[in-house]
Amino acid sequence: MLDLDTDTRAALAVLANDLADCARRETLAQFRPVGGIGADNKLEGGFDPVTEADRSAEAAMRALIAERRPQDGIYGEEHGVTRGESGLTWVLDPIDGTRGYLSGTPTWGVLIALCAEEADGPGAPMMGVIDQPYIGERFTGGFGRATLEGPHGGRGLGVRSGRGLDSATLFTTFPEVGTPDEGAAFARLSQQVRLTRYGMDCYAYALLAAGQIDLVVEAGLQPYDVAAPIAVIEAAGGLVTNWQGGPAHRGGQVLAAASPEIHAAALDVLNG
Amino acid sequence: MLDLDTDTRAALAVLANDLADCARRETLAQFRPVGGIGADNKLEGGFDPVTEADRSAEAAMRALIAERRPQDGIYGEEHGVTRGESGLTWVLDPIDGTRGYLSGTPTWGVLIALCAEEADGPGAPMMGVIDQPYIGERFTGGFGRATLEGPHGGRGLGVRSGRGLDSATLFTTFPEVGTPDEGAAFARLSQQVRLTRYGMDCYAYALLAAGQIDLVVEAGLQPYDVAAPIAVIEAAGGLVTNWQGGPAHRGGQVLAAASPEIHAAALDVLNG
Repeated sequence: MLDLDTDTRAALAVLANDLADCARRETLAQFRPVGGIGADNKLEGGFDPVTEADRSAEAAMRALIAERRPQDGIYGEEHGVTRGESGLTWVLDPIDGTRGYLSGTPTWGVLIALCAEEADGPGAPMMGVIDQPYIGERFTGGFGRATLEGPHGGRGLGVRSGRGLDSATLFTTFPEVGTPDEGAAFARLSQQVRLTRYGMDCYAYALLAAGQIDLVVEAGLQPYDVAAPIAVIEAAGGLVTNWQGGPAHRGGQVLAAASPEIHAAALDVLNG
Repeated sequence: MLDLDTDTRAALAVLANDLADCARRETLAQFRPVGGIGADNKLEGGFDPVTEADRSAEAAMRALIAERRPQDGIYGEEHGVTRGESGLTWVLDPIDGTRGYLSGTPTWGVLIALCAEEADGPGAPMMGVIDQPYIGERFTGGFGRATLEGPHGGRGLGVRSGRGLDSATLFTTFPEVGTPDEGAAFARLSQQVRLTRYGMDCYAYALLAAGQIDLVVEAGLQPYDVAAPIAVIEAAGGLVTNWQGGPAHRGGQVLAAASPEIHAAALDVLNG
Protein backbone atom coordinates (compact mmCIF):
# COMPACT_ATOMS: atom_id res chain seq x y z
CA MET A 1 0.00 0.00 0.00
CA LEU A 2 1.16 3.53 -0.71
CA ASP A 3 2.39 5.39 2.34
CA LEU A 4 -0.40 7.92 2.95
CA ASP A 5 -0.23 10.31 5.88
CA THR A 6 -3.12 10.78 8.31
CA ASP A 7 -4.37 14.01 6.74
CA THR A 8 -4.38 12.48 3.28
CA ARG A 9 -6.27 9.44 4.47
CA ALA A 10 -8.84 11.64 6.16
CA ALA A 11 -9.29 13.72 3.02
CA LEU A 12 -9.66 10.58 0.91
CA ALA A 13 -12.29 9.19 3.30
CA VAL A 14 -14.23 12.47 3.18
CA LEU A 15 -14.06 12.47 -0.61
CA ALA A 16 -15.30 8.86 -0.80
CA ASN A 17 -18.27 9.80 1.35
CA ASP A 18 -18.99 12.92 -0.71
CA LEU A 19 -18.79 10.88 -3.92
CA ALA A 20 -21.37 8.50 -2.51
CA ASP A 21 -23.64 11.42 -1.54
CA CYS A 22 -23.36 12.83 -5.01
CA ALA A 23 -24.11 9.47 -6.70
CA ARG A 24 -27.04 9.02 -4.33
CA ARG A 25 -28.63 12.23 -5.57
CA GLU A 26 -28.13 11.37 -9.24
CA THR A 27 -29.34 7.79 -9.02
CA LEU A 28 -32.38 8.55 -6.84
CA ALA A 29 -33.50 11.36 -9.14
CA GLN A 30 -34.30 8.78 -11.82
CA PHE A 31 -35.26 5.78 -9.68
CA ARG A 32 -38.77 4.28 -9.93
CA PRO A 33 -40.44 6.69 -12.33
CA VAL A 34 -44.13 6.16 -13.03
CA GLY A 35 -44.44 3.32 -15.54
CA GLY A 36 -40.92 2.07 -14.96
CA ILE A 37 -37.69 3.03 -16.64
CA GLY A 38 -36.42 2.82 -20.20
CA ALA A 39 -33.10 1.25 -21.11
CA ASP A 40 -31.03 0.97 -24.24
CA ASN A 41 -28.95 -2.04 -25.13
CA LYS A 42 -25.22 -1.71 -24.59
CA LEU A 43 -24.48 -5.14 -26.04
CA GLU A 44 -25.95 -6.32 -29.31
CA GLY A 45 -28.04 -9.41 -28.83
CA GLY A 46 -28.02 -9.24 -25.05
CA PHE A 47 -29.83 -7.19 -22.48
CA ASP A 48 -27.23 -5.00 -20.81
CA PRO A 49 -29.14 -1.97 -19.71
CA VAL A 50 -27.41 1.34 -19.30
CA THR A 51 -29.53 4.06 -17.89
CA GLU A 52 -29.09 7.78 -17.97
CA ALA A 53 -28.72 7.59 -14.19
CA ASP A 54 -25.66 5.37 -14.61
CA ARG A 55 -23.97 7.87 -16.86
CA SER A 56 -24.92 11.00 -14.95
CA ALA A 57 -23.94 9.55 -11.57
CA GLU A 58 -20.49 8.60 -12.84
CA ALA A 59 -20.05 11.99 -14.55
CA ALA A 60 -20.91 13.77 -11.31
CA MET A 61 -18.42 11.66 -9.35
CA ARG A 62 -15.70 12.26 -11.95
CA ALA A 63 -16.29 16.01 -11.76
CA LEU A 64 -15.92 15.96 -7.98
CA ILE A 65 -12.68 13.96 -8.15
CA ALA A 66 -11.33 16.33 -10.81
CA GLU A 67 -12.07 19.26 -8.50
CA ARG A 68 -10.68 17.81 -5.25
CA ARG A 69 -7.98 15.38 -6.35
CA PRO A 70 -7.09 16.10 -10.00
CA GLN A 71 -3.87 14.12 -9.54
CA ASP A 72 -5.78 10.84 -9.02
CA GLY A 73 -6.71 8.37 -11.75
CA ILE A 74 -10.28 7.19 -12.43
CA TYR A 75 -11.43 3.77 -13.61
CA GLY A 76 -15.18 3.93 -14.26
CA GLU A 77 -17.73 1.55 -15.73
CA GLU A 78 -19.39 4.07 -18.02
CA HIS A 79 -16.78 6.66 -18.94
CA GLY A 80 -13.60 4.61 -18.99
CA VAL A 81 -10.07 5.19 -17.72
CA THR A 82 -8.35 8.48 -16.85
CA ARG A 83 -4.72 8.00 -15.86
CA GLY A 84 -3.48 9.84 -12.76
CA GLU A 85 -0.17 10.97 -11.30
CA SER A 86 -0.63 10.30 -7.58
CA GLY A 87 -0.35 6.52 -7.70
CA LEU A 88 -4.04 6.33 -6.64
CA THR A 89 -7.07 5.59 -8.76
CA TRP A 90 -10.80 5.72 -8.02
CA VAL A 91 -12.71 2.69 -9.24
CA LEU A 92 -16.36 3.59 -9.82
CA ASP A 93 -19.49 1.62 -10.58
CA PRO A 94 -22.28 4.21 -10.45
CA ILE A 95 -25.02 1.54 -10.44
CA ASP A 96 -24.00 -2.02 -9.65
CA GLY A 97 -27.07 -4.08 -10.43
CA THR A 98 -28.56 -2.06 -13.25
CA ARG A 99 -31.18 -4.75 -13.84
CA GLY A 100 -32.23 -4.46 -10.19
CA TYR A 101 -32.31 -0.66 -10.52
CA LEU A 102 -34.47 -0.92 -13.63
CA SER A 103 -36.86 -3.20 -11.74
CA GLY A 104 -37.19 -0.86 -8.77
CA THR A 105 -35.52 -3.19 -6.23
CA PRO A 106 -33.66 -1.74 -3.23
CA THR A 107 -30.56 -3.95 -3.59
CA TRP A 108 -28.52 -2.29 -6.33
CA GLY A 109 -25.71 -0.05 -5.14
CA VAL A 110 -23.13 2.59 -5.86
CA LEU A 111 -19.60 1.17 -5.64
CA ILE A 112 -16.63 3.43 -4.96
CA ALA A 113 -13.13 2.15 -4.29
CA LEU A 114 -9.74 3.73 -3.87
CA CYS A 115 -6.94 1.59 -5.30
CA ALA A 116 -3.26 1.79 -6.02
CA GLU A 117 -2.87 2.60 -9.72
CA GLU A 118 -0.84 0.03 -11.62
CA ALA A 119 0.40 0.19 -15.20
CA ASP A 120 -2.31 -2.11 -16.52
CA GLY A 121 -5.25 -1.23 -14.25
CA PRO A 122 -6.35 -0.84 -10.65
CA GLY A 123 -4.32 -2.56 -7.93
CA ALA A 124 -5.60 -3.87 -4.61
CA PRO A 125 -8.24 -1.64 -3.01
CA MET A 126 -7.41 0.21 0.21
CA MET A 127 -10.83 1.73 0.87
CA GLY A 128 -14.32 1.13 -0.45
CA VAL A 129 -17.95 2.18 -0.17
CA ILE A 130 -21.09 0.15 -0.97
CA ASP A 131 -24.00 2.59 -0.92
CA GLN A 132 -27.70 1.80 -1.27
CA PRO A 133 -29.33 5.15 -1.99
CA TYR A 134 -33.01 4.22 -1.71
CA ILE A 135 -32.64 2.65 1.74
CA GLY A 136 -30.10 5.29 2.68
CA GLU A 137 -27.56 2.70 3.75
CA ARG A 138 -23.78 3.04 3.45
CA PHE A 139 -21.22 0.29 4.09
CA THR A 140 -17.67 1.66 4.27
CA GLY A 141 -14.38 -0.15 4.85
CA GLY A 142 -10.71 0.75 4.80
CA PHE A 143 -7.92 2.56 6.63
CA GLY A 144 -8.62 0.39 9.66
CA ARG A 145 -12.37 0.99 9.94
CA ALA A 146 -15.51 -0.82 8.79
CA THR A 147 -18.85 0.88 9.39
CA LEU A 148 -22.51 0.91 8.44
CA GLU A 149 -24.64 4.04 8.46
CA GLY A 150 -28.29 3.37 7.75
CA PRO A 151 -31.91 4.18 8.50
CA HIS A 152 -31.61 2.71 11.99
CA GLY A 153 -28.32 4.39 12.95
CA GLY A 154 -24.68 3.46 12.72
CA ARG A 155 -22.63 0.45 13.80
CA GLY A 156 -19.36 -1.28 13.14
CA LEU A 157 -19.19 -4.04 10.54
CA GLY A 158 -17.75 -7.46 11.32
CA VAL A 159 -18.02 -10.83 9.62
CA ARG A 160 -19.28 -13.87 11.51
CA SER A 161 -17.21 -17.01 11.84
CA GLY A 162 -17.45 -20.52 13.19
CA ARG A 163 -19.93 -21.82 10.61
CA GLY A 164 -19.14 -24.80 8.42
CA LEU A 165 -20.55 -25.25 4.92
CA ASP A 166 -23.47 -27.27 6.30
CA SER A 167 -24.79 -24.29 8.24
CA ALA A 168 -23.71 -21.60 5.78
CA THR A 169 -25.72 -19.12 3.72
CA LEU A 170 -24.47 -18.58 0.15
CA PHE A 171 -25.44 -15.78 -2.23
CA THR A 172 -25.01 -15.12 -5.92
CA THR A 173 -26.89 -12.84 -8.30
CA PHE A 174 -27.83 -15.05 -11.27
CA PRO A 175 -28.63 -18.78 -10.88
CA GLU A 176 -26.55 -19.63 -13.96
CA VAL A 177 -23.60 -17.77 -12.33
CA GLY A 178 -21.35 -17.67 -15.44
CA THR A 179 -20.25 -20.28 -18.00
CA PRO A 180 -21.76 -23.79 -17.81
CA ASP A 181 -18.60 -25.00 -15.99
CA GLU A 182 -18.82 -22.13 -13.53
CA GLY A 183 -22.51 -22.84 -13.03
CA ALA A 184 -21.75 -26.52 -12.33
CA ALA A 185 -19.09 -25.59 -9.77
CA PHE A 186 -21.54 -23.25 -8.08
CA ALA A 187 -24.23 -25.94 -8.06
CA ARG A 188 -21.82 -28.31 -6.27
CA LEU A 189 -21.21 -25.67 -3.62
CA SER A 190 -24.90 -24.85 -3.35
CA GLN A 191 -25.63 -28.51 -2.56
CA GLN A 192 -23.22 -28.36 0.40
CA VAL A 193 -24.62 -25.28 2.13
CA ARG A 194 -27.78 -24.83 4.15
CA LEU A 195 -29.25 -21.93 2.21
CA THR A 196 -28.63 -20.40 -1.24
CA ARG A 197 -30.16 -17.08 -2.24
CA TYR A 198 -30.15 -15.07 -5.46
CA GLY A 199 -30.62 -11.62 -6.87
CA MET A 200 -28.91 -9.22 -4.46
CA ASP A 201 -26.06 -7.83 -6.63
CA CYS A 202 -23.49 -5.93 -4.51
CA TYR A 203 -25.82 -5.99 -1.52
CA ALA A 204 -24.78 -9.60 -0.88
CA TYR A 205 -21.19 -8.48 -0.21
CA ALA A 206 -22.49 -5.88 2.22
CA LEU A 207 -24.47 -8.57 4.08
CA LEU A 208 -21.32 -10.67 4.34
CA ALA A 209 -19.39 -7.72 5.81
CA ALA A 210 -22.29 -7.16 8.23
CA GLY A 211 -22.01 -10.71 9.59
CA GLN A 212 -25.34 -11.96 8.21
CA ILE A 213 -24.20 -14.44 5.54
CA ASP A 214 -21.11 -16.59 4.93
CA LEU A 215 -20.28 -16.80 1.23
CA VAL A 216 -20.74 -14.86 -2.01
CA VAL A 217 -19.69 -16.54 -5.25
CA GLU A 218 -19.81 -14.85 -8.64
CA ALA A 219 -18.11 -15.05 -12.03
CA GLY A 220 -17.53 -12.81 -15.02
CA LEU A 221 -17.04 -9.68 -12.90
CA GLN A 222 -15.19 -6.49 -13.80
CA PRO A 223 -12.73 -4.67 -11.52
CA TYR A 224 -15.36 -2.03 -10.70
CA ASP A 225 -17.76 -4.80 -9.55
CA VAL A 226 -15.37 -6.12 -6.90
CA ALA A 227 -12.96 -3.41 -5.75
CA ALA A 228 -15.31 -1.78 -3.24
CA PRO A 229 -16.72 -5.09 -1.92
CA ILE A 230 -13.16 -6.35 -1.36
CA ALA A 231 -12.24 -3.27 0.67
CA VAL A 232 -15.39 -3.42 2.80
CA ILE A 233 -15.21 -7.17 3.43
CA GLU A 234 -11.49 -7.16 4.24
CA ALA A 235 -11.96 -4.26 6.65
CA ALA A 236 -14.77 -6.26 8.32
CA GLY A 237 -12.48 -9.26 8.78
CA GLY A 238 -13.43 -11.40 5.80
CA LEU A 239 -11.54 -12.39 2.69
CA VAL A 240 -12.10 -12.24 -1.07
CA THR A 241 -10.13 -14.15 -3.70
CA ASN A 242 -10.67 -15.61 -7.14
CA TRP A 243 -11.60 -19.30 -7.46
CA GLN A 244 -7.91 -20.24 -7.38
CA GLY A 245 -7.30 -18.44 -4.10
CA GLY A 246 -5.44 -15.56 -5.79
CA PRO A 247 -6.22 -11.83 -5.92
CA ALA A 248 -9.73 -10.95 -7.12
CA HIS A 249 -9.46 -7.20 -7.65
CA ARG A 250 -9.18 -7.51 -11.42
CA GLY A 251 -12.56 -9.28 -11.50
CA GLY A 252 -13.45 -12.59 -13.14
CA GLN A 253 -14.39 -15.33 -10.67
CA VAL A 254 -14.91 -14.13 -7.11
CA LEU A 255 -15.23 -16.01 -3.82
CA ALA A 256 -15.96 -13.87 -0.75
CA ALA A 257 -15.94 -15.61 2.60
CA ALA A 258 -16.52 -14.79 6.25
CA SER A 259 -13.60 -16.86 7.57
CA PRO A 260 -10.44 -18.60 6.30
CA GLU A 261 -11.95 -21.97 7.19
CA ILE A 262 -15.13 -21.60 5.16
CA HIS A 263 -13.14 -19.98 2.35
CA ALA A 264 -10.90 -23.05 2.13
CA ALA A 265 -13.86 -25.41 2.25
CA ALA A 266 -15.68 -23.51 -0.52
CA LEU A 267 -12.54 -23.36 -2.66
CA ASP A 268 -12.22 -27.14 -2.42
CA VAL A 269 -15.78 -27.69 -3.60
CA LEU A 270 -15.56 -25.13 -6.43
CA ASN A 271 -12.45 -26.91 -7.73
CA GLY A 272 -13.73 -30.43 -7.04
CA MET B 1 -67.90 -8.15 -0.59
CA LEU B 2 -69.58 -7.56 2.73
CA ASP B 3 -71.42 -4.28 2.98
CA LEU B 4 -69.20 -2.23 5.28
CA ASP B 5 -70.12 1.35 6.15
CA THR B 6 -67.65 4.22 5.87
CA ASP B 7 -66.83 4.36 9.57
CA THR B 8 -66.18 0.63 9.69
CA ARG B 9 -63.90 0.79 6.67
CA ALA B 10 -61.97 3.66 8.21
CA ALA B 11 -61.55 1.76 11.48
CA LEU B 12 -60.39 -1.33 9.60
CA ALA B 13 -57.85 0.72 7.63
CA VAL B 14 -56.51 2.28 10.84
CA LEU B 15 -56.24 -1.15 12.44
CA ALA B 16 -54.37 -2.58 9.43
CA ASN B 17 -51.89 0.25 9.69
CA ASP B 18 -51.50 -0.20 13.44
CA LEU B 19 -50.97 -3.94 12.97
CA ALA B 20 -48.19 -3.18 10.52
CA ASP B 21 -46.59 -0.73 12.98
CA CYS B 22 -46.73 -3.32 15.70
CA ALA B 23 -45.20 -6.07 13.50
CA ARG B 24 -42.52 -3.61 12.41
CA ARG B 25 -41.39 -3.14 15.99
CA GLU B 26 -41.32 -6.87 16.73
CA THR B 27 -39.52 -7.91 13.57
CA LEU B 28 -36.93 -5.12 13.67
CA ALA B 29 -36.07 -5.82 17.30
CA GLN B 30 -34.54 -9.13 16.23
CA PHE B 31 -33.31 -8.27 12.73
CA ARG B 32 -29.59 -8.49 11.87
CA PRO B 33 -28.10 -9.37 15.26
CA VAL B 34 -24.31 -9.55 15.50
CA GLY B 35 -23.22 -12.91 14.05
CA GLY B 36 -26.51 -13.52 12.28
CA ILE B 37 -29.65 -15.21 13.50
CA GLY B 38 -30.46 -18.71 14.68
CA ALA B 39 -33.33 -20.76 13.30
CA ASP B 40 -34.95 -24.02 14.17
CA ASN B 41 -36.39 -26.43 11.67
CA LYS B 42 -40.16 -26.42 11.29
CA LEU B 43 -40.14 -29.25 8.74
CA GLU B 44 -38.17 -32.44 9.27
CA GLY B 45 -35.59 -32.90 6.57
CA GLY B 46 -36.03 -29.44 5.08
CA PHE B 47 -34.88 -25.98 6.00
CA ASP B 48 -37.99 -24.05 6.95
CA PRO B 49 -36.80 -21.48 9.41
CA VAL B 50 -39.14 -20.07 11.97
CA THR B 51 -37.69 -17.35 14.06
CA GLU B 52 -38.76 -15.99 17.37
CA ALA B 53 -39.52 -12.74 15.55
CA ASP B 54 -42.08 -14.56 13.38
CA ARG B 55 -43.92 -15.85 16.40
CA SER B 56 -43.75 -12.71 18.50
CA ALA B 57 -44.84 -10.44 15.64
CA GLU B 58 -47.90 -12.57 14.95
CA ALA B 59 -48.73 -12.81 18.66
CA ALA B 60 -48.56 -9.02 18.96
CA MET B 61 -50.85 -8.56 15.95
CA ARG B 62 -53.33 -11.13 17.29
CA ALA B 63 -53.44 -9.33 20.64
CA LEU B 64 -54.21 -6.02 18.94
CA ILE B 65 -57.01 -7.56 16.84
CA ALA B 66 -58.45 -9.22 19.96
CA GLU B 67 -58.51 -5.84 21.68
CA ARG B 68 -59.98 -3.76 18.84
CA ARG B 69 -62.05 -6.22 16.82
CA PRO B 70 -62.65 -9.35 18.92
CA GLN B 71 -65.50 -10.30 16.58
CA ASP B 72 -63.11 -10.85 13.63
CA GLY B 73 -61.44 -14.12 12.69
CA ILE B 74 -57.67 -14.57 12.34
CA TYR B 75 -55.82 -16.83 9.91
CA GLY B 76 -52.10 -16.68 10.76
CA GLU B 77 -49.02 -18.51 9.54
CA GLU B 78 -47.57 -19.25 12.97
CA HIS B 79 -50.49 -19.49 15.39
CA GLY B 80 -53.25 -20.94 13.20
CA VAL B 81 -56.94 -20.17 12.79
CA THR B 82 -59.28 -18.36 15.16
CA ARG B 83 -62.87 -18.30 13.92
CA GLY B 84 -64.75 -15.00 14.07
CA GLU B 85 -68.36 -13.81 14.09
CA SER B 86 -68.22 -10.67 11.96
CA GLY B 87 -67.78 -12.37 8.58
CA LEU B 88 -64.30 -10.84 8.37
CA THR B 89 -60.95 -12.51 8.96
CA TRP B 90 -57.41 -11.12 9.20
CA VAL B 91 -54.86 -13.11 7.21
CA LEU B 92 -51.39 -12.62 8.69
CA ASP B 93 -47.90 -13.55 7.60
CA PRO B 94 -45.64 -11.90 10.17
CA ILE B 95 -42.49 -12.48 8.09
CA ASP B 96 -42.95 -13.40 4.45
CA GLY B 97 -39.49 -14.39 3.28
CA THR B 98 -38.07 -15.84 6.47
CA ARG B 99 -34.96 -16.99 4.60
CA GLY B 100 -34.39 -13.43 3.43
CA TYR B 101 -34.96 -12.15 6.97
CA LEU B 102 -32.45 -14.67 8.32
CA SER B 103 -29.92 -13.48 5.73
CA GLY B 104 -30.36 -9.81 6.60
CA THR B 105 -31.84 -8.77 3.23
CA PRO B 106 -34.27 -5.83 3.04
CA THR B 107 -36.88 -7.58 0.86
CA TRP B 108 -38.84 -9.73 3.29
CA GLY B 109 -42.11 -8.26 4.47
CA VAL B 110 -45.04 -8.29 6.86
CA LEU B 111 -48.27 -9.29 5.09
CA ILE B 112 -51.64 -8.28 6.48
CA ALA B 113 -54.92 -8.82 4.65
CA LEU B 114 -58.55 -8.41 5.50
CA CYS B 115 -60.77 -11.04 3.88
CA ALA B 116 -64.31 -12.26 3.94
CA GLU B 117 -64.42 -15.31 6.21
CA GLU B 118 -65.74 -18.42 4.49
CA ALA B 119 -66.56 -21.78 6.04
CA ASP B 120 -63.35 -23.42 4.85
CA GLY B 121 -60.90 -20.51 4.99
CA PRO B 122 -60.30 -16.93 3.92
CA GLY B 123 -62.26 -15.56 0.98
CA ALA B 124 -61.19 -12.88 -1.47
CA PRO B 125 -59.16 -10.07 0.15
CA MET B 126 -60.67 -6.59 0.34
CA MET B 127 -57.66 -4.76 1.81
CA GLY B 128 -54.00 -5.59 2.23
CA VAL B 129 -50.67 -4.25 3.47
CA ILE B 130 -47.16 -5.24 2.35
CA ASP B 131 -44.75 -3.69 4.84
CA GLN B 132 -40.94 -3.68 4.69
CA PRO B 133 -39.87 -2.68 8.20
CA TYR B 134 -36.13 -2.16 7.65
CA ILE B 135 -36.59 0.25 4.74
CA GLY B 136 -39.66 1.71 6.41
CA GLU B 137 -41.81 1.17 3.35
CA ARG B 138 -45.52 0.37 3.35
CA PHE B 139 -47.62 -0.63 0.32
CA THR B 140 -51.35 -0.53 1.06
CA GLY B 141 -54.31 -1.33 -1.18
CA GLY B 142 -58.04 -1.66 -0.78
CA PHE B 143 -61.31 0.23 -0.24
CA GLY B 144 -60.55 2.20 -3.41
CA ARG B 145 -57.05 3.34 -2.55
CA ALA B 146 -53.51 2.13 -3.34
CA THR B 147 -50.64 3.96 -1.69
CA LEU B 148 -46.95 3.76 -0.85
CA GLU B 149 -45.42 5.42 2.20
CA GLY B 150 -41.67 5.16 2.30
CA PRO B 151 -38.35 6.79 3.13
CA HIS B 152 -38.77 9.27 0.28
CA GLY B 153 -42.38 10.22 1.03
CA GLY B 154 -45.75 9.01 -0.14
CA ARG B 155 -47.34 8.40 -3.55
CA GLY B 156 -50.17 6.52 -5.18
CA LEU B 157 -49.55 3.06 -6.55
CA GLY B 158 -50.44 2.10 -10.11
CA VAL B 159 -49.40 -0.75 -12.38
CA ARG B 160 -47.82 -0.06 -15.77
CA SER B 161 -49.32 -1.38 -18.96
CA GLY B 162 -48.62 -1.58 -22.66
CA ARG B 163 -45.69 -3.99 -22.43
CA GLY B 164 -45.68 -7.30 -24.26
CA LEU B 165 -43.84 -10.35 -23.00
CA ASP B 166 -40.78 -9.43 -25.08
CA SER B 167 -40.24 -6.24 -23.08
CA ALA B 168 -41.49 -7.55 -19.75
CA THR B 169 -39.74 -8.03 -16.41
CA LEU B 170 -40.64 -11.24 -14.54
CA PHE B 171 -39.93 -12.06 -10.89
CA THR B 172 -40.04 -15.17 -8.78
CA THR B 173 -38.35 -16.06 -5.50
CA PHE B 174 -36.70 -19.45 -6.11
CA PRO B 175 -35.30 -20.47 -9.53
CA GLU B 176 -36.84 -23.96 -9.21
CA VAL B 177 -40.24 -22.26 -8.55
CA GLY B 178 -42.11 -25.41 -7.41
CA THR B 179 -42.43 -28.94 -8.76
CA PRO B 180 -40.35 -29.94 -11.81
CA ASP B 181 -43.41 -29.36 -14.05
CA GLU B 182 -44.00 -25.94 -12.51
CA GLY B 183 -40.32 -25.14 -12.93
CA ALA B 184 -40.50 -26.13 -16.60
CA ALA B 185 -43.54 -23.93 -17.18
CA PHE B 186 -41.76 -21.03 -15.52
CA ALA B 187 -38.67 -21.64 -17.65
CA ARG B 188 -40.78 -21.41 -20.82
CA LEU B 189 -42.15 -18.06 -19.65
CA SER B 190 -38.72 -16.85 -18.61
CA GLN B 191 -37.45 -17.49 -22.15
CA GLN B 192 -40.15 -15.21 -23.57
CA VAL B 193 -39.54 -12.15 -21.37
CA ARG B 194 -36.76 -9.60 -21.46
CA LEU B 195 -35.62 -9.91 -17.88
CA THR B 196 -36.09 -12.48 -15.10
CA ARG B 197 -35.08 -11.77 -11.52
CA TYR B 198 -35.08 -13.85 -8.36
CA GLY B 199 -35.05 -13.63 -4.59
CA MET B 200 -37.45 -10.81 -3.67
CA ASP B 201 -40.24 -12.69 -1.83
CA CYS B 202 -43.32 -10.47 -1.33
CA TYR B 203 -41.37 -7.39 -2.39
CA ALA B 204 -41.82 -8.47 -6.01
CA TYR B 205 -45.61 -8.05 -5.69
CA ALA B 206 -45.06 -4.58 -4.25
CA LEU B 207 -42.87 -3.66 -7.24
CA LEU B 208 -45.61 -4.83 -9.60
CA ALA B 209 -48.17 -2.65 -7.81
CA ALA B 210 -45.71 0.25 -8.01
CA GLY B 211 -45.50 -0.01 -11.81
CA GLN B 212 -41.88 -1.18 -11.96
CA ILE B 213 -42.26 -4.77 -13.18
CA ASP B 214 -44.82 -6.74 -15.18
CA LEU B 215 -45.19 -10.29 -13.88
CA VAL B 216 -44.71 -12.31 -10.71
CA VAL B 217 -45.08 -16.10 -10.93
CA GLU B 218 -44.88 -18.44 -7.96
CA ALA B 219 -46.13 -21.86 -6.87
CA GLY B 220 -46.75 -23.72 -3.65
CA LEU B 221 -48.04 -20.66 -1.82
CA GLN B 222 -50.29 -20.49 1.22
CA PRO B 223 -53.28 -18.14 1.61
CA TYR B 224 -51.26 -15.86 3.92
CA ASP B 225 -48.56 -15.53 1.21
CA VAL B 226 -50.95 -14.12 -1.38
CA ALA B 227 -53.93 -12.42 0.27
CA ALA B 228 -52.20 -9.08 0.94
CA PRO B 229 -50.38 -9.00 -2.44
CA ILE B 230 -53.70 -9.64 -4.23
CA ALA B 231 -55.38 -6.72 -2.42
CA VAL B 232 -52.51 -4.32 -3.11
CA ILE B 233 -52.10 -5.31 -6.77
CA GLU B 234 -55.82 -5.23 -7.53
CA ALA B 235 -56.14 -1.81 -5.90
CA ALA B 236 -53.24 -0.64 -8.08
CA GLY B 237 -54.99 -1.83 -11.25
CA GLY B 238 -53.35 -5.23 -11.80
CA LEU B 239 -54.68 -8.74 -11.55
CA VAL B 240 -53.74 -11.94 -9.75
CA THR B 241 -55.01 -15.43 -10.55
CA ASN B 242 -53.85 -19.00 -10.33
CA TRP B 243 -52.24 -20.63 -13.40
CA GLN B 244 -55.68 -21.59 -14.70
CA GLY B 245 -56.97 -18.03 -14.55
CA GLY B 246 -59.10 -18.69 -11.46
CA PRO B 247 -59.00 -17.16 -7.97
CA ALA B 248 -55.60 -17.26 -6.26
CA HIS B 249 -56.46 -16.25 -2.71
CA ARG B 250 -56.26 -19.81 -1.42
CA GLY B 251 -52.62 -20.03 -2.56
CA GLY B 252 -51.01 -22.67 -4.74
CA GLN B 253 -49.88 -21.42 -8.15
CA VAL B 254 -49.96 -17.64 -8.53
CA LEU B 255 -49.68 -15.39 -11.59
CA ALA B 256 -49.70 -11.65 -10.90
CA ALA B 257 -49.80 -9.35 -13.90
CA ALA B 258 -49.79 -5.64 -14.66
CA SER B 259 -52.42 -5.83 -17.41
CA PRO B 260 -55.06 -8.23 -18.77
CA GLU B 261 -53.08 -8.52 -22.02
CA ILE B 262 -49.80 -9.63 -20.45
CA HIS B 263 -51.72 -11.84 -18.02
CA ALA B 264 -53.35 -13.68 -20.94
CA ALA B 265 -50.05 -14.01 -22.77
CA ALA B 266 -48.29 -15.40 -19.68
CA LEU B 267 -51.14 -17.81 -18.97
CA ASP B 268 -50.82 -19.19 -22.52
CA VAL B 269 -47.10 -19.83 -22.08
CA LEU B 270 -47.47 -21.39 -18.61
CA ASN B 271 -50.04 -23.81 -20.01
CA GLY B 272 -48.23 -24.37 -23.33
